[in-house]
Amino acid sequence: MMNGKLKESHTLLEWPEVITYMESAEVAFEHYRRYPASRRIDFLRQIAREIATIRLNLVEIAHQETHLPEGRLHGEIDRTINQINLFAEVLEEGSWVNAIIDTANPQRIPAPKPDIRQMQLPLGPVCVYGASNFPFAFSVAGGDTISALAAGCPVLYKVHEGHPQTSQLVSGCIERAASQTDMPQGVFASLMVAREIGLQVVTHPSIAAVAFTGSFSGGKALYDAAARRPVPIPVYAEMGSINPVFLLPDQLKHHAEATAIALAASNTLGAGQFCTNPGLMVMLQSPETEHFLSTYGSQLAEQTCHDMLTPGIYTAYSAGVERLKSINGIQVLGEGKTEGLPSDAAVPVAFRVRGADFLRNDALREEYFGPASIHVIAEDTAQLLEIAKVLDGQLTSSVWCTDVDIDSFGLLFQALEGKAGRLIINGAPTGVEVGHAMVHGGPFPATTDARSTSVGTQAIYRFTRPVSYQNYPDRLLPVELRDGNRLGIWRKLDGELTKQSL
Amino acid sequence: MMNGKLKESHTLLEWPEVITYMESAEVAFEHYRRYPASRRIDFLRQIAREIATIRLNLVEIAHQETHLPEGRLHGEIDRTINQINLFAEVLEEGSWVNAIIDTANPQRIPAPKPDIRQMQLPLGPVCVYGASNFPFAFSVAGGDTISALAAGCPVLYKVHEGHPQTSQLVSGCIERAASQTDMPQGVFASLMVAREIGLQVVTHPSIAAVAFTGSFSGGKALYDAAARRPVPIPVYAEMGSINPVFLLPDQLKHHAEATAIALAASNTLGAGQFCTNPGLMVMLQSPETEHFLSTYGSQLAEQTCHDMLTPGIYTAYSAGVERLKSINGIQVLGEGKTEGLPSDAAVPVAFRVRGADFLRNDALREEYFGPASIHVIAEDTAQLLEIAKVLDGQLTSSVWCTDVDIDSFGLLFQALEGKAGRLIINGAPTGVEVGHAMVHGGPFPATTDARSTSVGTQAIYRFTRPVSYQNYPDRLLPVELRDGNRLGIWRKLDGELTKQSL
Repeated sequence: MMNGKLKESHTLLEWPEVITYMESAEVAFEHYRRYPASRRIDFLRQIAREIATIRLNLVEIAHQETHLPEGRLHGEIDRTINQINLFAEVLEEGSWVNAIIDTANPQRIPAPKPDIRQMQLPLGPVCVYGASNFPFAFSVAGGDTISALAAGCPVLYKVHEGHPQTSQLVSGCIERAASQTDMPQGVFASLMVAREIGLQVVTHPSIAAVAFTGSFSGGKALYDAAARRPVPIPVYAEMGSINPVFLLPDQLKHHAEATAIALAASNTLGAGQFCTNPGLMVMLQSPETEHFLSTYGSQLAEQTCHDMLTPGIYTAYSAGVERLKSINGIQVLGEGKTEGLPSDAAVPVAFRVRGADFLRNDALREEYFGPASIHVIAEDTAQLLEIAKVLDGQLTSSVWCTDVDIDSFGLLFQALEGKAGRLIINGAPTGVEVGHAMVHGGPFPATTDARSTSVGTQAIYRFTRPVSYQNYPDRLLPVELRDGNRLGIWRKLDGELTKQSL
Repeated sequence: MMNGKLKESHTLLEWPEVITYMESAEVAFEHYRRYPASRRIDFLRQIAREIATIRLNLVEIAHQETHLPEGRLHGEIDRTINQINLFAEVLEEGSWVNAIIDTANPQRIPAPKPDIRQMQLPLGPVCVYGASNFPFAFSVAGGDTISALAAGCPVLYKVHEGHPQTSQLVSGCIERAASQTDMPQGVFASLMVAREIGLQVVTHPSIAAVAFTGSFSGGKALYDAAARRPVPIPVYAEMGSINPVFLLPDQLKHHAEATAIALAASNTLGAGQFCTNPGLMVMLQSPETEHFLSTYGSQLAEQTCHDMLTPGIYTAYSAGVERLKSINGIQVLGEGKTEGLPSDAAVPVAFRVRGADFLRNDALREEYFGPASIHVIAEDTAQLLEIAKVLDGQLTSSVWCTDVDIDSFGLLFQALEGKAGRLIINGAPTGVEVGHAMVHGGPFPATTDARSTSVGTQAIYRFTRPVSYQNYPDRLLPVELRDGNRLGIWRKLDGELTKQSL
């Protein structure tokens, strides 16, 4: 069950030790949740500084553990630091608590109207399961950990076996930051545990929410384990996606080559190891489509990929490609170079299949994590729409199109709206912007909870719940809800957004 | 399994018919979700008008079916109509969609920043299970149905067997409103089904969310059934609560009588059949506490209650009271009149028990739906805090206190913050205000999802998910996200709330 990297070089925690950490997180929560925002901001910013301080060491170790190129790892550290600082800004601005105030009306007939004030409060200790493919941005100090800490929740981080040393280094950053900013003991712990114990964690009463990024089998196992708890908790499992891309005829008529080049680059980026990797492309049969396909195939022939993240991922990818090759009606459209590659390097491969064959075969709608793509040639628009409609939930769906296409394919845009968390026009799905408007989520099986995003500032709400205070004296209210609005935040006051005090 | 009212006078739908309704709702969703807000507003307001039109008939039938007093039923119809119109106002104002716009920056280094815009979209057909105790406000056209319709979701309403005729009348109101405002067929259906089929509905792929108000066993059964679906969906089960009330010493020193009178009235209101009924009161031993208790007991002696909602509820209440009476260490503090009562009338009863006995006995922390209350006398402040900490999740928790008490009981307020959806000072928990700031929800077992409220305008978010549009041409965006902001709604534009256009 365990990757050699973890088993050989690190002592795994046993269940009783893990319980101690979880109980410690629960105790920490009672303190941490009541800290003023300023203290959480200091903590977050110190984490960012600690990471920046050991950046070179982090890149070196992460490169050894994941085979990801150093340039990419530097970029990912930038992203991670920016993400931390963005959450600090959100706390500093303060309006994220969604303060809502309905003032009293003692004269109301038939019954007096009470003063009621609402805001978001943190849920409790969160268990975060990091991803293999982002050793920084979706791991120890990644989006889930940082949004949970920002919300006021302690974090227990389950170390991914693909990069244990990197995880240990980043954990050290968080621990030093916690100590330097006087955070309560237990506010953060990283757990190196066997997979079965990692699964057991979600069943413990101290855990108030779960966030996971990884495979369908891993995420669904956590979801199912949590569903059997006596006390249900939110489980946010982001489990990947085939990220369908629709290529419309006028687009291919005018931009077949550029489109093929952009999508081949997106599909093979980072050895295809992105949950937003475009794994399915759908188009209508036409000479322009053939032009796109031949360009795409020849693009692949130029490509080599680096080693995949873990031997397990490489094995699964290779087996998946072999399985695809054995499917009736599927043809190889193009493949990357195979000579002189390192041992676990992914070979990019693209397949073509007719729309009718695609619709017949569920295996073609599964994710093959790596630089593989399936190109579906629909007979006509009706079949293309049918393909859109049978798709499962996705993180992203994209359409490459011109204005002419937009006028002709209204039903396609409508159908895709129900399928994905992020809808893209003329852009690669890889590259998940960290901002306010991002949704990195989507309907099952992309995630277990489509109401949430794991990237961007809205992710803070995965770890909160609303609470109302009725008829509270001002001094007993949280500062965000007091009459004076000392923090100057936006509040909904009797239905109107305002920064005014009462 | 079925109450006589339903079995005798109505034909129950069989599963194949129910499937037809669900599939019809799914088809309706594809149209309804894309209607402009103005059309949903017309629909909602017409529902309110239809209800007002047959108000007298509704009150008459509901009184026969539920035994609730006519005055109360008129009040509940007012509340239901106000609630519908409030959601119409929310749609009219328009900012509820939570529009977030991050503008592009093509010059950004190292990668251009795309234009990304986010808003909330409806989930799909919602199955609503109404409550026995609110034949209007938490039933056919109650909060869950109306917030789902407002969000853009069709509704399948499972008729409660306690008031089938009332349900049929209100369903008629919604159906007429749908027809008059040209809503798609399938936007609403009420289902008279046996309980087992009601449970099966949540497993059907057409259903995108479930909302329930009722007992723990009923709500948990729905939750468990939904958790076994291949595709998980949100389940909002509001399952009641014992609504603890803490009575602090300085309050009882100065206001023992008034407090007892207010709480006895709250506990016996509507025969105690509110999910916010104060079923547990906790206080420190003292002469003032004895004064409170004797007043409370003598208040009860003056009380009679009307018939309970259903024979089943009456039987469960009576059995619960008998079980409580048999518990070691519990004493009857007072009881209501028993002579000359109608057959299914609840007899109010209050018990007293020492803190240590309360802590020993889990049965004292269960809900006894009806006008029963358990008064716990804590030995000291430490024990009172211990009692607060062992409580399960609640819809509400209340503290009756003076300024002096507030200074001395800081830890109590902290402990209760983690326990309930609504925290009340010096007020009865009964009476759930329909507004913007209300949270009618709370940690399990009060509900299955503490992130949500079933009352108030924030309830609309139970039935939505965020979606991002990346690099979309203006005309392809939903109107709420277009540059011009024609609707004049609040949007978060590059991190700042504004009504400005781009």
